[in-house]
Amino acid sequence: MAKSIQSLQRAAAVLRLLAGGERRLGLSDISSSLGLAKGTAHGILRTLQEEGFVEQDPASGRYQLGAELLRLGNSYLDVHELRSRALVWTDDLARSSGESVHVGVLHLEGVLIVHHVFRPDDSRQVLEVGAMQPLHSTALGKVLAAYDPVARGEAVRGARERLTARTVTDLEQFEAILELTRSRGWAADVEETWEGVAAVAAPIHDRRRMPVGAIALTGAVERLCEDGEIRPELITAVRECARSVSRDVGAGRF
Amino acid sequence: MAKSIQSLQRAAAVLRLLAGGERRLGLSDISSSLGLAKGTAHGILRTLQEEGFVEQDPASGRYQLGAELLRLGNSYLDVHELRSRALVWTDDLARSSGESVHVGVLHLEGVLIVHHVFRPDDSRQVLEVGAMQPLHSTALGKVLAAYDPVARGEAVRGARERLTARTVTDLEQFEAILELTRSRGWAADVEETWEGVAAVAAPIHDRRRMPVGAIALTGAVERLCEDGEIRPELITAVRECARSVSRDVGAGRF
Repeated sequence: MAKSIQSLQRAAAVLRLLAGGERRLGLSDISSSLGLAKGTAHGILRTLQEEGFVEQDPASGRYQLGAELLRLGNSYLDVHELRSRALVWTDDLARSSGESVHVGVLHLEGVLIVHHVFRPDDSRQVLEVGAMQPLHSTALGKVLAAYDPVARGEAVRGARERLTARTVTDLEQFEAILELTRSRGWAADVEETWEGVAAVAAPIHDRRRMPVGAIALTGAVERLCEDGEIRPELITAVRECARSVSRDVGAGRF
Repeated sequence: MAKSIQSLQRAAAVLRLLAGGERRLGLSDISSSLGLAKGTAHGILRTLQEEGFVEQDPASGRYQLGAELLRLGNSYLDVHELRSRALVWTDDLARSSGESVHVGVLHLEGVLIVHHVFRPDDSRQVLEVGAMQPLHSTALGKVLAAYDPVARGEAVRGARERLTARTVTDLEQFEAILELTRSRGWAADVEETWEGVAAVAAPIHDRRRMPVGAIALTGAVERLCEDGEIRPELITAVRECARSVSRDVGAGRF
């Protein structure tokens, strides 16, 4: 078995550091945050800069993430089988429901958005591809945690931060929600992550019946809900969309 | 001066390899393409996999780019000053013109798209953020090459591949186009990159009057052109948009 390479692990830690919190950091901030000698940190930063993974502001000397990451992230999407199979189905779902659609996969301790179809109206919307969502409070996260034991482990071990007054943070309650999600095949988020926002999600399974991602409809709680519950026709629509994508990635017919 | 770190350079080469051409490669393909011993390549791939930069297909054993690149690429965009300053102006331009708008910056030997506003209609469109465009044939590329000596160098040294019957590949003709671009302050691409597609672009300057990017309007040649030339009102609109963004990034008033 090949050994892990320390300088690569350190370089990855530098990139993670620049991706969170401050995002523009000086050499001393970086070396002290990661417990590295300045010379070591400088060698890593210099090489990352030569390769386009970090950029240095000429005025302040501070470092930030570089353009090569955007190019590589786009190449990752190009080869993403789940995403390419979901394109047409999610587009149809957004059109028929009039709401925005997200496709998410488990990544690190959260949900990584790999596809986002805007709500088909004239409103200004921000693309969320590449953004992360919490596992414990979002519809996508609950679906992944309900069907994928790795995701469940992350959500159980995680902090389950209170994001709104309705966020479920208690472990027993959370486990009951996962059980409910498995028994009915979908999960909801009614203002548990963002005030005023509701979502409903269903799982995507691959040919081995493994959960490989989830699809969610997201929108204003006033439009998505009736008496505090997700409207039944939207639940049906998102489940049908997820089943269509599952069939396209090779899962058995339902 | 800190020395560049060989294992990082090799890891970057692995990622570049996976981003181009085949995109799903086995260990032998990777080690032979990069002239590395199998054990060396394996150590790099293993570490990249642990850090989420590559993923391995369990069935075929082949490697592809990993989800962490998408997350980091998204963080790069979050901190991209030019992009955030351009958001509102480019949105307005797309609405007023009815066409799609792109913001591009120089990266490697081409134009990296850092922002893309869809054409405001119901048509299905593919997001191009993170995609690359050639310098020698696109409106964005010509503007960058006209104003940025580094971009010009890349375009002059590059292959200037013939992409359509109208692509300018001859160096002297290309230099004349850059001269024309500088003298009138904008560049056009009428079916020089894609059949049926026209574009017009103008430069964004920063507070030091350096070209930091370009903005383009892109659409069907039938809509954008009249008698084979970009319609004058669209040229005015894209130049005004680029001036507004330039002012927002600190360039002097015009």
